[in-house]
Amino acid sequence: MTPISEHWDKSIREIAGEAALAALADANRQGVDGLFVGNMLSGTLNRQENLGALLADWIGLRGTEAVKIEAACGSGGAAVRQALMAVASGVMDSALAVGVEKMTDTVPATTTGGLATAADSDWEAAQGVSFVALNALVMQRYLHEYGWTKDDFAPFAVNAHGNAMHNPYARLHEKVDARAYKKARMVAEPINLLDASPTGDGAAAVLIVPVDAVASNGRPRITIAGSASATDTLAIHDRRDPLWLSAAELSARKAYAQAGVGPADIDVFELHDAFSIMAALSLEACGFAERGQGPRLALDGEIVPTGRVPIATRGGLKARGHPVGATGVYQICELVEQLRGTATGTQVDGARIGMAQNIGGSGATIVTHILKSG
Amino acid sequence: MTPISEHWDKSIREIAGEAALAALADANRQGVDGLFVGNMLSGTLNRQENLGALLADWIGLRGTEAVKIEAACGSGGAAVRQALMAVASGVMDSALAVGVEKMTDTVPATTTGGLATAADSDWEAAQGVSFVALNALVMQRYLHEYGWTKDDFAPFAVNAHGNAMHNPYARLHEKVDARAYKKARMVAEPINLLDASPTGDGAAAVLIVPVDAVASNGRPRITIAGSASATDTLAIHDRRDPLWLSAAELSARKAYAQAGVGPADIDVFELHDAFSIMAALSLEACGFAERGQGPRLALDGEIVPTGRVPIATRGGLKARGHPVGATGVYQICELVEQLRGTATGTQVDGARIGMAQNIGGSGATIVTHILKSG
Repeated sequence: MTPISEHWDKSIREIAGEAALAALADANRQGVDGLFVGNMLSGTLNRQENLGALLADWIGLRGTEAVKIEAACGSGGAAVRQALMAVASGVMDSALAVGVEKMTDTVPATTTGGLATAADSDWEAAQGVSFVALNALVMQRYLHEYGWTKDDFAPFAVNAHGNAMHNPYARLHEKVDARAYKKARMVAEPINLLDASPTGDGAAAVLIVPVDAVASNGRPRITIAGSASATDTLAIHDRRDPLWLSAAELSARKAYAQAGVGPADIDVFELHDAFSIMAALSLEACGFAERGQGPRLALDGEIVPTGRVPIATRGGLKARGHPVGATGVYQICELVEQLRGTATGTQVDGARIGMAQNIGGSGATIVTHILKSG
Repeated sequence: MTPISEHWDKSIREIAGEAALAALADANRQGVDGLFVGNMLSGTLNRQENLGALLADWIGLRGTEAVKIEAACGSGGAAVRQALMAVASGVMDSALAVGVEKMTDTVPATTTGGLATAADSDWEAAQGVSFVALNALVMQRYLHEYGWTKDDFAPFAVNAHGNAMHNPYARLHEKVDARAYKKARMVAEPINLLDASPTGDGAAAVLIVPVDAVASNGRPRITIAGSASATDTLAIHDRRDPLWLSAAELSARKAYAQAGVGPADIDVFELHDAFSIMAALSLEACGFAERGQGPRLALDGEIVPTGRVPIATRGGLKARGHPVGATGVYQICELVEQLRGTATGTQVDGARIGMAQNIGGSGATIVTHILKSG
């Protein structure tokens, strides 16, 4: 992982290259059979497509097969899944999934305009609805349907920011409490600054190889025990129930079945808290809370590293930051930290099974992975 | 395949949907396990990312796993390859590769600016070099090194335009001869209008399933006997030899080995003639002509459907058209026509083995497929 920040002095290839080379070094390898680059906005914001070939050349692997994978903010998780299938197919013996996004220093377009391309262009964005506004409509409806007050969402921000204090790669190192949440500036009612994740520049990478090719090097062996992806409508108004992430439910159910586990077995859950309402909806769709009861888990203190369902243990999207196409790979790297027992400061005691869920659009593309150690 | 044209009355989802549903109908199927959408410019030109989920919902397959694959103008071929690996991995029993591009009716950006994102943004595009200008520099150097005159390239356009007359999906139905080539308006010297492929709106789709799942329905069974991808530098000036497509050589060599064939066994070669110089370079890198001798094949009449190395048999990029992210899938569909014996008007007699080569950037990402019938 690279630190998530405003890297005005680095181009997108440099950021991606840092993460890719760090992952290869961690695995003590020089090369790889294929590169899968998760990225959403390089064409719009950096005027650069063909990122796969660009990165292969930049890291000294000219000639190596490479491709870019896009699924809006779910691009990183989708890249991990493509790399996994490539290795599982036998076509490749090793595949590197690299998530990268460079969102500052972007002359040609605005980040807000770019993010709106994750929504339905003809039926949502064309009306002028920004991505945060769409999520605000969902949160407003949630408060109305289930009777929560806005302040009940404070624990999501407090947990994420507290955990990020211990993560050197996090975008924000700024402890917040319930009072700060109450006073935070409104972005799109009822979403305030402490409900919304910050964008940023960053990259993360993870190397995928067959299980029997993992060298015994004294560290726990991490396996991908479950991997699944599902979709939903892009436009929220097309859904039968705008308060239910059916693609989260579907992909989690498949991943649970593959791994032979259920929600109660998950020691750490790195979810997609782009907005705090999304954290609540993910907890519900994946079976950690009853419908409409996501905030209850948070209010009961169950989402912190010592709780029953630790989430955002390294800061989550909220405080680690959300370089959109990279986020899904950060989640996997953070699970690896937890399963290796190296999540300094926020280590979940005895973590053996972790789940990551990456979301593209307001629930339109969802990729769920379950990792096991040992 | 959809006809390639200026579809002012259709959005990108409608165009992609037509091709996807046509492919499913051709295979007599209602659904599929996964969608792989090859596309380059939807974010820039259509303000729409997350195309995978968008298409899944639009064609009535809400929930189905879907993702977008990008490798500049090689996106279509790359999508086919991802679909192939997904099925080979055992994760999916069926995968639909859909290539789509909508290049007219694009308010936010120019097509020329979009296409430039296939080049190196920091070192090529930043200097104001357009994509056609880059190819013009390569062609100029080629003429200088090997002593050809510009008019020696006329047969590439004549063959492509002649073949497209018989293809109902082609962008251009306009027979041209050597005199028309000589008189064609210059775009970027020495590339004239008849060296350059037209952009357009279009989509094509191909369904991939395990060999033993193909129903015996009286039609020849088409198998993918070879599939490989390789990369090169994005920036042409970074290459040791700007007149050699090393990624074409590398990917073709791998595909030949997998299929157990060589250039002499290929009955049809759908190559990436975005510019006529690229047709010559592909013929050389893939072993159909000696270095610097690509135009010789064309001048000797060997590239027409009755020749030794039939290329662009349905019009190629030059006359069938080049909706960039869709092109690689059109090539596969055209090979299927040839191998089924349904390439009316330009059928290659007894075609049994076909090769398609799709290029992203000026040779930066190259995907090569070999198909066999029977």
